[in-house]
Amino acid sequence: MTQPSLVDAADALERLRARRPLVHNITNYVAMTVSANVLLALGASPAMVHAIEEVNDFVAISDALVVNIGTLSPPWVEAMRRAVVAANAAGKPWVLDPVGCGATRYRTDVAAELVALRPVVIRGNASEIMSLVGTDLAGATAAGPKGVDSTAQSNEALDAARTLASRTGSVVAVTGVVDYATDGINDVPVEGGDAMMPLSTALGCSLSAVTAAFAAVTDPMTAAVSALAVFGKAGAEAARRCRGPGHLPAELCDALYLMNRTKLEQGPRTSRVA
Amino acid sequence: MTQPSLVDAADALERLRARRPLVHNITNYVAMTVSANVLLALGASPAMVHAIEEVNDFVAISDALVVNIGTLSPPWVEAMRRAVVAANAAGKPWVLDPVGCGATRYRTDVAAELVALRPVVIRGNASEIMSLVGTDLAGATAAGPKGVDSTAQSNEALDAARTLASRTGSVVAVTGVVDYATDGINDVPVEGGDAMMPLSTALGCSLSAVTAAFAAVTDPMTAAVSALAVFGKAGAEAARRCRGPGHLPAELCDALYLMNRTKLEQGPRTSRVA
Amino acid sequence: MTQPSLVDAADALERLRARRPLVHNITNYVAMTVSANVLLALGASPAMVHAIEEVNDFVAISDALVVNIGTLSPPWVEAMRRAVVAANAAGKPWVLDPVGCGATRYRTDVAAELVALRPVVIRGNASEIMSLVGTDLAGATAAGPKGVDSTAQSNEALDAARTLASRTGSVVAVTGVVDYATDGINDVPVEGGDAMMPLSTALGCSLSAVTAAFAAVTDPMTAAVSALAVFGKAGAEAARRCRGPGHLPAELCDALYLMNRTKLEQGPRTSRVA
Repeated sequence: MTQPSLVDAADALERLRARRPLVHNITNYVAMTVSANVLLALGASPAMVHAIEEVNDFVAISDALVVNIGTLSPPWVEAMRRAVVAANAAGKPWVLDPVGCGATRYRTDVAAELVALRPVVIRGNASEIMSLVGTDLAGATAAGPKGVDSTAQSNEALDAARTLASRTGSVVAVTGVVDYATDGINDVPVEGGDAMMPLSTALGCSLSAVTAAFAAVTDPMTAAVSALAVFGKAGAEAARRCRGPGHLPAELCDALYLMNRTKLEQGPRTSRVA
Repeated sequence: MTQPSLVDAADALERLRARRPLVHNITNYVAMTVSANVLLALGASPAMVHAIEEVNDFVAISDALVVNIGTLSPPWVEAMRRAVVAANAAGKPWVLDPVGCGATRYRTDVAAELVALRPVVIRGNASEIMSLVGTDLAGATAAGPKGVDSTAQSNEALDAARTLASRTGSVVAVTGVVDYATDGINDVPVEGGDAMMPLSTALGCSLSAVTAAFAAVTDPMTAAVSALAVFGKAGAEAARRCRGPGHLPAELCDALYLMNRTKLEQGPRTSRVA
Repeated sequence: MTQPSLVDAADALERLRARRPLVHNITNYVAMTVSANVLLALGASPAMVHAIEEVNDFVAISDALVVNIGTLSPPWVEAMRRAVVAANAAGKPWVLDPVGCGATRYRTDVAAELVALRPVVIRGNASEIMSLVGTDLAGATAAGPKGVDSTAQSNEALDAARTLASRTGSVVAVTGVVDYATDGINDVPVEGGDAMMPLSTALGCSLSAVTAAFAAVTDPMTAAVSALAVFGKAGAEAARRCRGPGHLPAELCDALYLMNRTKLEQGPRTSRVA
């Protein structure tokens, strides 16, 4: 398999803007507004719909689904299950963001149940991905999360990401100083972003939503890499305009809105892991 | 009936700021923060209250209510029902925002039930208003929504808005490139806003909240036109300060905070539809 | 007892940044995103967790808890109860924000129940604090809230704050033009902030979250004073960069991110009430 390149990401961005996919978000309360704004700025059409009474109908008209467990509770988990089953039945791509997996048993159990339902992409931080394969419990690189924040680096989670991808068939995107997308065999590292990004809430959640938007217009690996590349490039641009994290979400939206092939192909770089 | 003018809107804005109406919001999760900020910047006092245990008590102390179905679920719909019944019994004005009406049967049914409870103003986009009168199913201008985004232009929905107003007795405000308020007989077009506004989430929802704030201090038609005029003028000013949609909500709040009679009477224009 | 000084606040801020406490938030929908961003900018690690299935486990890994009743409902109140009981059992500090106490009976009853569970700090506006001791019903300074906004000044609530502190053993922080922290015997007034701050939603809620973060690293009185001093100083700096309230949350986050000992020790002043 050829690795997706920045040219592929630029192609995918153009398709996304032409198609303007309707992205169904079942996400956490903290992330809703910023995720909606990020999707709109990028060129997608977001909707937040969680009632059991309508999730199936909404999956039917949507182009992709993102499921994020950040502020989960039983009625929301039931909505997630139904939406995912409907998406799978209809062949609609869906992305899982296992926020805080490993922090509590409930959260870890729900994440494991959703992973088994085969998202096209799983996007998480190092602690979350390691928790999903049990590395945080047993491995030498053990690192439980600090609430919803990671205590491990993304490269420490790369083995876990490969294992998770191989077990599930999902592409796994693990984010950190360097981001990685892997299908279990091929890894694509993506540079970009800024150290200030983790200081603004729900940007990782928004990246998962962007991944779903790309999954509506391309294959899972290209979607994951395109989302990481576009978000990483826009995030780096945004951070350069900020003296602190306060304006970062707004600047990120502007950078996504103004993103184009020329900017994207200048970087961040993607290259095969040796 | 004389059409409300920009002088009337400026009068209403001054009354609103003098009275600082308490606006009870039962709204969607995505819109809560931005709606609260918009109401505060304008000069109203917002509160978000949805528990069945307290909605009746809260209606009793509020000056107006806005009901928005953006992220509905059965417990919230029950709170909406109770709040609306209490508002009607107390003679308090309430505004309906039928977000995403037409996207799913559940959403359309809930919107229809609430419309029958006679809001003083219904504020929606073209697809939502057309869905409420069934035009999207049967008419020549049929256009289902794309999730919560409209696929039709506001002028295409003007007949539907007139029909809805005539059937219900509500003033209907349909927003788009040009906004219209109608009571079924008289139409008031209001220009303003900016093409960037739909790229920032929940600004339409915030406009509905602003309409409720105005309904606390004036008649429904003047409230609808005042809200459209103030929001349209502030939105246009805000967009001129933005290179993308990221800072638009913050700039909109500043423009609302700084809005005054002089700015408002300069435009946007309102004029009778021929 | 010696009053906490700005040197103590600066010490506490350095400890907070060194420890990066995990702050468990059970808060209202409106405040979630801004509270998370404020905590991150300051140097804490926020998480929003409300499911009954996981609140106990989350308390166990957290350093402090903030409970905010802004958009309460029975399932959330049950989560608050369980989290508070778990925090008390584990000796973890928790802070109560009784948003809108006095506006409805349900809200007042829930606030009273939570007060009885002995938060280390209660942070509210004047109307809320007066409502908690019944001053709003019986006293000469009677002033019910206007929804979630105060109709009284903080100095009018100082007697009520002292009474509440004496009854409960909690430190009480009452905010307004001048903020006060009291343990019932000693009062510490803290100047700072800006008249524009009440025009941006959920900043008071965010201050309560910041108080919880400080309570993870110091005693309750020092935590309350440190939070008021840091927030007041940062808020004043932020407001100077704003022409309206729109950018205030973002500027506040930047000011918190850039806050340091030198800036903090320049003011705002704290001094003993004569």
